[in-house]
Amino acid sequence: MVANTPPPAARTRGAEPPAAGRRDSYTVESLLAVTVEVFNARGYDGTSMEDLSRAAGISKSSIYHHVRGKEELLRLAVGRALDGLFAILDEPRAVEGRPVERLEHVVRRTAEVLLAELPYVTLLLRVRGNTAAEQWALGRRRDFDHRVAELVRAAAADGDLRGDVEPRLATRLLFGMINSIVEWYHPDAEADGGTEAAERIVEAVVRLAFGGLRRTS
Amino acid sequence: MVANTPPPAARTRGAEPPAAGRRDSYTVESLLAVTVEVFNARGYDGTSMEDLSRAAGISKSSIYHHVRGKEELLRLAVGRALDGLFAILDEPRAVEGRPVERLEHVVRRTAEVLLAELPYVTLLLRVRGNTAAEQWALGRRRDFDHRVAELVRAAAADGDLRGDVEPRLATRLLFGMINSIVEWYHPDAEADGGTEAAERIVEAVVRLAFGGLRRTS
Repeated sequence: MVANTPPPAARTRGAEPPAAGRRDSYTVESLLAVTVEVFNARGYDGTSMEDLSRAAGISKSSIYHHVRGKEELLRLAVGRALDGLFAILDEPRAVEGRPVERLEHVVRRTAEVLLAELPYVTLLLRVRGNTAAEQWALGRRRDFDHRVAELVRAAAADGDLRGDVEPRLATRLLFGMINSIVEWYHPDAEADGGTEAAERIVEAVVRLAFGGLRRTS
Repeated sequence: MVANTPPPAARTRGAEPPAAGRRDSYTVESLLAVTVEVFNARGYDGTSMEDLSRAAGISKSSIYHHVRGKEELLRLAVGRALDGLFAILDEPRAVEGRPVERLEHVVRRTAEVLLAELPYVTLLLRVRGNTAAEQWALGRRRDFDHRVAELVRAAAADGDLRGDVEPRLATRLLFGMINSIVEWYHPDAEADGGTEAAERIVEAVVRLAFGGLRRTS
């Protein structure tokens, strides 16, 4: 996973001057892995091309060899998160069967994609600003939320969801729970690099989202 | 609620020069209401005393008449949120009865306090940094989380919570859901100023947290 294994260059940031003639062995993908770390640490607004150059250990002109600039890097990084999320909606189990089962699949897979693409989804969830790339990301995020909210409404119309919580509000709280993972999950702190923990988190999300905390039997 | 009704001066920010000899009619409380808005909009790190002076429409020296500086304003603002949250833990329904009922009370009241003190809790949840005031806030927040996690463990030990989700993970996801409210709830957008919506949100939180989305009957 690119997200969790930045290339060696990314680990040396700050250890040497930015444009030290270091050989540029980056691909757009590995450059993105470094970029997304810096955006998440400093904020998109607070990140300059200088910061990216220093973190990547290559000159700004080397970065411009790969992309047109900071805004394109943002678009590529959040695009990766969005592509992963939208792909879920086309999976067979998201389009076939009862809405409540499709919804359960989408909830499970959304948590999985969030964990697999953690830095990219973290960046997507923190986008707030007014540049064209940020507005585009916010719009696509809203589209995704609307698609899921439709599924919640369809499941509610079938009588498969509880009737005493509005679908729109349920969708917001449900995604609030899932999205909160980016705030407290730190795969590096997990003994096995996070895989086992990620599976337990996904199961917990699905169980709590659909069944709640209280024992019912 | 101070949080939702900043004094008139707060609405004029940017409309006049900062230190125009404007009469300082602030109390610490009304100054905090302006401050917390600015901290939430610009981030604590990104806010200067100059920004606060401009937003309040009074000079920096007038601000220093009320508080020692930016860090004290942060401490007072997040202190207000923390005091509201910790007070919940001493309420009779939080200390008497079965742990699962005490937990339900704490979840309900936490959502209520978050909504009543929205800007202050928003600031608390966004604190990240390394100043003494920020570290203190993070520590107090962890204490609160530990107190709630103990209640979750006690309720689980009684057999009142589902046995297939670890208490620590359940606590994180539960608070992830509650805390997400600060990201999407905008009381100004509600027709009645937010009271009715706030009550519906609190009910939805309690129902989803304990019973989940799926209809069980």
